[in-house]
Amino acid sequence: MESNIYIGLVHHPIYDKRKEVVATAITNFDIHDIARCAKTFGVGGFFIITPLESQVQLADRILRHWREGTGSVYNPTRKESFSLVRVSRTIDEADREIFNLWQTKVKRVATGASPHPKNIDFGFLRNLLKDEKTPFFLLFGTGWGLTQEVKDSSDYILAPIAGKGYNHLSVRSAVAIILDRLLGDRMNSLE
Amino acid sequence: MESNIYIGLVHHPIYDKRKEVVATAITNFDIHDIARCAKTFGVGGFFIITPLESQVQLADRILRHWREGTGSVYNPTRKESFSLVRVSRTIDEADREIFNLWQTKVKRVATGASPHPKNIDFGFLRNLLKDEKTPFFLLFGTGWGLTQEVKDSSDYILAPIAGKGYNHLSVRSAVAIILDRLLGDRMNSLE
Repeated sequence: MESNIYIGLVHHPIYDKRKEVVATAITNFDIHDIARCAKTFGVGGFFIITPLESQVQLADRILRHWREGTGSVYNPTRKESFSLVRVSRTIDEADREIFNLWQTKVKRVATGASPHPKNIDFGFLRNLLKDEKTPFFLLFGTGWGLTQEVKDSSDYILAPIAGKGYNHLSVRSAVAIILDRLLGDRMNSLE
Repeated sequence: MESNIYIGLVHHPIYDKRKEVVATAITNFDIHDIARCAKTFGVGGFFIITPLESQVQLADRILRHWREGTGSVYNPTRKESFSLVRVSRTIDEADREIFNLWQTKVKRVATGASPHPKNIDFGFLRNLLKDEKTPFFLLFGTGWGLTQEVKDSSDYILAPIAGKGYNHLSVRSAVAIILDRLLGDRMNSLE
């Protein structure tokens, strides 16, 4: 059965160090680590979102290598996880692709490292996701995170991962932890 | 207060694809992602374990860049997380360093992607770690995982992260998820 949960790795619009809106470059490790997490937790699709044509081509080349090229023979499990990956120019373009599959409005969930007045907690979202008739699109920002506008226009904004006075995880680690909290096997991980 | 939990990223002895015992090369992203996770979850120290002199020197150079070099000015939060990182030639050498600090036997916990008859679950280990008088050393294998010998000689072997029919996470993602399950804020993440 098709999963109703999709993730997007946003390279634009996001902030840089000085809080200016930029487009970041694609990071090879992001694609591998996040695709493997997506496959582990049964996500329906993983969208790499970048408006830059050169980056779209780079992503396509990496995907082809692992899906059809020598990478697919060298490491068949990588091929399996890469089958979930798509490339889109914008968040809206990815959203439309999900809409076309489901024919119903896609609920967007923004994530981030800072608290927001509209934050929902992990337990709340975990329950929401059980509504298998509604597609959910979880957005993760690269660089210094999703813009305020992306957050404000989302249906939900997930609470940050609360660290011990330090909130500077890589986006790869954040995706791993968030997918585990939302979709991971709870029987084995709790007290 | 000093945390009683330490992690080790093992580059030898581990298996390669053909189940031969090898030493893997250091991966820059491992150091960054795992150091940031260690800082986020309040771990006492992160040991990079490699017997290869060239790799020890490479790791030292990377650490110096972020702790004292231009990296420390460019990104002070990275400097903070890198303060937790040590380099050791062997698991035993890292173990002795922890023993010297605590003056009591270090309990070793092996991790891995395959089930083992001696597996303990996450809730059980989460409770064990609350014994703040006992230092714990969590071992993560690179490549195709820790050798049987390392597992058999550990005090505990943690259950694998149960995926939906796919158990090929990167070691970076596995560390993130395992630290969150063992040390993460449970108030915010549960139903």
